[in-house]
Amino acid sequence: MKRTGIGKIALMLALNEGAALERHIEKFEEQNYMLYRGKVGSMETGKIFAAVETAAMREDMIRENYREEHALYHATMEAFSAYCRGQVDLGNVLRSTGLVFSIARGNLVSGDKSSGEWIAVVLYGQIGSPRQGFEHEAIGMGIQPV
Amino acid sequence: MKRTGIGKIALMLALNEGAALERHIEKFEEQNYMLYRGKVGSMETGKIFAAVETAAMREDMIRENYREEHALYHATMEAFSAYCRGQVDLGNVLRSTGLVFSIARGNLVSGDKSSGEWIAVVLYGQIGSPRQGFEHEAIGMGIQPV
Amino acid sequence: MKRTGIGKIALMLALNEGAALERHIEKFEEQNYMLYRGKVGSMETGKIFAAVETAAMREDMIRENYREEHALYHATMEAFSAYCRGQVDLGNVLRSTGLVFSIARGNLVSGDKSSGEWIAVVLYGQIGSPRQGFEHEAIGMGIQPV
Amino acid sequence: MKRTGIGKIALMLALNEGAALERHIEKFEEQNYMLYRGKVGSMETGKIFAAVETAAMREDMIRENYREEHALYHATMEAFSAYCRGQVDLGNVLRSTGLVFSIARGNLVSGDKSSGEWIAVVLYGQIGSPRQGFEHEAIGMGIQPV
Amino acid sequence: MKRTGIGKIALMLALNEGAALERHIEKFEEQNYMLYRGKVGSMETGKIFAAVETAAMREDMIRENYREEHALYHATMEAFSAYCRGQVDLGNVLRSTGLVFSIARGNLVSGDKSSGEWIAVVLYGQIGSPRQGFEHEAIGMGIQPV
Amino acid sequence: MKRTGIGKIALMLALNEGAALERHIEKFEEQNYMLYRGKVGSMETGKIFAAVETAAMREDMIRENYREEHALYHATMEAFSAYCRGQVDLGNVLRSTGLVFSIARGNLVSGDKSSGEWIAVVLYGQIGSPRQGFEHEAIGMGIQPV
Repeated sequence: MKRTGIGKIALMLALNEGAALERHIEKFEEQNYMLYRGKVGSMETGKIFAAVETAAMREDMIRENYREEHALYHATMEAFSAYCRGQVDLGNVLRSTGLVFSIARGNLVSGDKSSGEWIAVVLYGQIGSPRQGFEHEAIGMGIQPV
Repeated sequence: MKRTGIGKIALMLALNEGAALERHIEKFEEQNYMLYRGKVGSMETGKIFAAVETAAMREDMIRENYREEHALYHATMEAFSAYCRGQVDLGNVLRSTGLVFSIARGNLVSGDKSSGEWIAVVLYGQIGSPRQGFEHEAIGMGIQPV
Repeated sequence: MKRTGIGKIALMLALNEGAALERHIEKFEEQNYMLYRGKVGSMETGKIFAAVETAAMREDMIRENYREEHALYHATMEAFSAYCRGQVDLGNVLRSTGLVFSIARGNLVSGDKSSGEWIAVVLYGQIGSPRQGFEHEAIGMGIQPV
Repeated sequence: MKRTGIGKIALMLALNEGAALERHIEKFEEQNYMLYRGKVGSMETGKIFAAVETAAMREDMIRENYREEHALYHATMEAFSAYCRGQVDLGNVLRSTGLVFSIARGNLVSGDKSSGEWIAVVLYGQIGSPRQGFEHEAIGMGIQPV
Repeated sequence: MKRTGIGKIALMLALNEGAALERHIEKFEEQNYMLYRGKVGSMETGKIFAAVETAAMREDMIRENYREEHALYHATMEAFSAYCRGQVDLGNVLRSTGLVFSIARGNLVSGDKSSGEWIAVVLYGQIGSPRQGFEHEAIGMGIQPV
Repeated sequence: MKRTGIGKIALMLALNEGAALERHIEKFEEQNYMLYRGKVGSMETGKIFAAVETAAMREDMIRENYREEHALYHATMEAFSAYCRGQVDLGNVLRSTGLVFSIARGNLVSGDKSSGEWIAVVLYGQIGSPRQGFEHEAIGMGIQPV
């Protein structure tokens, strides 16, 4: 069977829609991946971090200990840094975002248990000035062992 | 007809494979997007920039003038900054990458001519230490008007 | 006739004073450059961005579309990053600024129509601790095709 | 006599405790170093800068002029950048810190008057999510001539 | 018994000398920490990363798998970013370094098994222009779960 | 008499040409400023730093001690960071520059002896892809007490 990286699993979870999204979720949940897809919009950087962390905790994707919380935080920080492509900020530099985030937890490569447990966070959405239509797409991903 | 952002068009061009990739290319070339997908691997940052620029020039995706070359350079820089998630470097910090890059040129949103011409560059691949298997996925995207 | 870059045109617009400033404006307005010079002071980064954007819109230096607003935003971001020389922040790192900003729109090089339309943003002023006299000069410039 | 750098003097001032701390202070005050050790905790970056500056002023470690204040500010900025290891921010990226800071003023190397006067700022503490126990240690140091 | 963070254990391993260093090593090896202290000097960033990784591998401080190598790499990157206090580079910006590095592996806090295994990397030395005596001290630390 | 900041003195030294340049130099040398103007072009970051440092040493603008060399280095680093507006690099990210640099040493504000001695470094030139005409202007300035 074809192997897929946890990064692509999280990316497709954020990018797919409708029936393709449902098939994607079903396929990788069968392969023991924990998957979550949420939405958040804000001019405040902290709201993006809080949305990802709250979802991961509520869905039991990370255990209640610091090692796992640390991995999730660093994955989110890497994803957000990438999403911003330079200055890591939103409202302070007068821009806003609305995005879909996805979280995937499981092997680094599907079907390869030797790679151990990892967590991937993807942010995909629109970033721009806080005026309707004055924005373009951005994407960011962070991956950490957990 | 459903509208798609130029970012998602470039992302799916880098992420899809096989028949899905062919359908994707066919669909958006019909909608007048110029699309290109290539591969490059290196420990030298400059090689990544050169691969994207050479392909875009050879495929006539940017015209031979500085305005368009400037837009492509900035889109590539944004994509590479995001891909690196922090320190924007490869061999200097002892890491290597092998990646697929995609370039898309056309309207910011499919079917919306009022948005004008834009260019999107996506980098998707494996980044890590220069030892086989000691690497994970990364992604980066930059979008500029052209 | 001697050619001048749009960067130097914007720099001299920010740096000159009195009669030299008037001659500078007259000379380059005759060569079809749009020029604006304003002032802003704040501990909030967002206020600097807002002052430049508001002036450019009000003076019709950028058209009401996202492509042009995007170019202005990136030019301002580059100018502000340069102005801060490292950490891109004001009040969060306990410093304040009072500055003159200038915006120039026209050919990349005076008299060279083949170079197309570009926009240059310059910030020049005093940056330092929010105590009178505890500050020194800084400058930043960003240039984008528009 | 063994020579010690002002950096190590400030580092040991932040890291030592109890009797070892007292001996350290006594030893280097005898060698004409000005030393200060304080504590600050916050989610606001500005509070860290303010705590260091206020202490240095109150203890007369810097004179009331801009040259010395500038040196202290840059030393603090370097120490805080190092402490954050990447994105230079606290609350905006949803993290908090509690730390000990130390300031040392004197020769770059103990017993070497030819090196002139320098100032060293060290930050050492815990950084992490604003939940008890979800944090780890960090350190940063900046050194400037004064 | 007093508890000590893995950060302070690694910091003191880099900063102590002579008999105090021997006592420090003995004390924390008894508490099941793996400790290593080495030296490296270079104008090439990659040499610093290579020295830390080679030592950790040779001393069996990280296992031969990607999860552990990833943790060591990120801890070294954080330490080196902090050490550079801004632009993360050596020879490219015409400076050189000679430093002691230390690596510690064990619980996040001594005597607290619930905190799991972590790795700390500390860099402490002299950074400056490549001329004798034109340099000052710097320090950096990175901590990751392993 | 009108007072001028050392930053504007260095900026005008880099930006002026011909008779205006000569008048500028004459005016501020009479006010006891040390002034230097040179040129350098390269794809290597280190060459820019070396050109500024070599000129300052040869012209006796900084004394042969580390405190003054440190001030010059930091002023050059700030100027170069600003000049690059983001990623602080040239050839590694496939770009090249040709620039005029200026150095000014004297009071922070002309005629104000209480402000002490400072040094300002300005870089002004063209940055872009290493193809003729594919470049635009950039500027950067750093100011440090010396």
